[in-house]
Amino acid sequence: MNIKPKVTLVGAGPGDPELISLKGIKAIKAADVILYDALVDESLLEYANEKCTKIYVGKRAEQLSTSQDQINQLLVDYALTHGHIVRLKGGDPFVFGRGGEELDFVHQFNIETAVVPGISSSIGLTGIQQIPLTYRGISESFWVITGSTTAGKLSQDLYTAVQTNATVVVLMGFGKLTEIVELYQQRGKGNLPIALIQNGSLPNEKIIMGTIDDILDESQEKRVGVPAIIVLGEVVAKHRDFKNIIKKFATA
Amino acid sequence: MNIKPKVTLVGAGPGDPELISLKGIKAIKAADVILYDALVDESLLEYANEKCTKIYVGKRAEQLSTSQDQINQLLVDYALTHGHIVRLKGGDPFVFGRGGEELDFVHQFNIETAVVPGISSSIGLTGIQQIPLTYRGISESFWVITGSTTAGKLSQDLYTAVQTNATVVVLMGFGKLTEIVELYQQRGKGNLPIALIQNGSLPNEKIIMGTIDDILDESQEKRVGVPAIIVLGEVVAKHRDFKNIIKKFATA
Repeated sequence: MNIKPKVTLVGAGPGDPELISLKGIKAIKAADVILYDALVDESLLEYANEKCTKIYVGKRAEQLSTSQDQINQLLVDYALTHGHIVRLKGGDPFVFGRGGEELDFVHQFNIETAVVPGISSSIGLTGIQQIPLTYRGISESFWVITGSTTAGKLSQDLYTAVQTNATVVVLMGFGKLTEIVELYQQRGKGNLPIALIQNGSLPNEKIIMGTIDDILDESQEKRVGVPAIIVLGEVVAKHRDFKNIIKKFATA
Repeated sequence: MNIKPKVTLVGAGPGDPELISLKGIKAIKAADVILYDALVDESLLEYANEKCTKIYVGKRAEQLSTSQDQINQLLVDYALTHGHIVRLKGGDPFVFGRGGEELDFVHQFNIETAVVPGISSSIGLTGIQQIPLTYRGISESFWVITGSTTAGKLSQDLYTAVQTNATVVVLMGFGKLTEIVELYQQRGKGNLPIALIQNGSLPNEKIIMGTIDDILDESQEKRVGVPAIIVLGEVVAKHRDFKNIIKKFATA
């Protein structure tokens, strides 16, 4: 057998299996082995050919069921023994997906690599909810920040972000919501609109909105949990239901 | 005929027609009218049904061949007379795509709307080039900023961004490259890696890389032009060819 080792990182998109790209589907069809994450919809595996080996290396939020070192090694081992490996990741491979580390490791073995980008939840989930990340006169930029740094603290970038007019999207940060709210309150941004989107793009999608000052109560009342993204900025008020929600608080 | 007006914004992705999502294709197939931009690959129109009307409302960089007001009005007029309108936009509809303005206008007429997100060039084109937007220990965030503000000046956000470790992606900013380089130099970041990606994801894709201090020469020599995105940050050095390029400058 003539093995041609190759590793392709593929972004599966934010959840809904129809949000993968045509190119992503093509890569899945061409794969000899697929290594896939927890946040990937398993129906996507049905595009693979019959002989394809499918391996779950589930990651969910900060918990790893397979360590990153193990995943790196699996990519190389399977590429050398099986040929074309597709590493199927939720969202986009390079948006906090550790895709860069996987490529660095694979490149040490002179294995060919390719990347098929995906729709990041930061852009896709706000989009589906019709919250525009940018809007003339309101926001000239958006800033996507991890809520889960190696040190376990809030990213220093958030301390800068709070002082700007950028739309801020925090991924993997739901566990730090209280800290984030406190930071925004300390900087006088208690009235800033904020949204939490849980299970975005999936049938059980849930969104709650409010201002910094009332989002914690709202989040508890509506029982929001992970996985959820946090969106902070005036553009959140562009959501069609935002005005009604704010009225509700005003009359409460 | 029973007309059910609806407007769906669809992100076509960064250029390569295979980078649209399955859901985007579905929307195109279901469209009665498609209004599409200049940066959209026309082969995508072939997915439309035979009776679908396809209208070019080309925008390229800052030039408008159809004004935004006209596009807004067309969306409403066609929805009321033809039914399901797909507004097919390059990249993602909400990343400097003025999708928010289109929805605001359409909502005034109580027309149903939906959004199918797309792969933004900010994430997709860096991904294809295997430049990771985030990387543990290097960058905990990425900040996407327009290079083309309403006032014609550099966005204030760039003055903040230069002081952070965030990966910065500037869209529609190639015409301001000299100003951006000067800003970074003034803040002592002459050694920061930078990449320019022109015609990303297309057959004529071109990338040049270097440091802030040498990118203008390199850009002139290699004749880079629009459309191009600018990527600034230490993660650019993760590109496999970056080391060779820096060696070249050192021995020049």
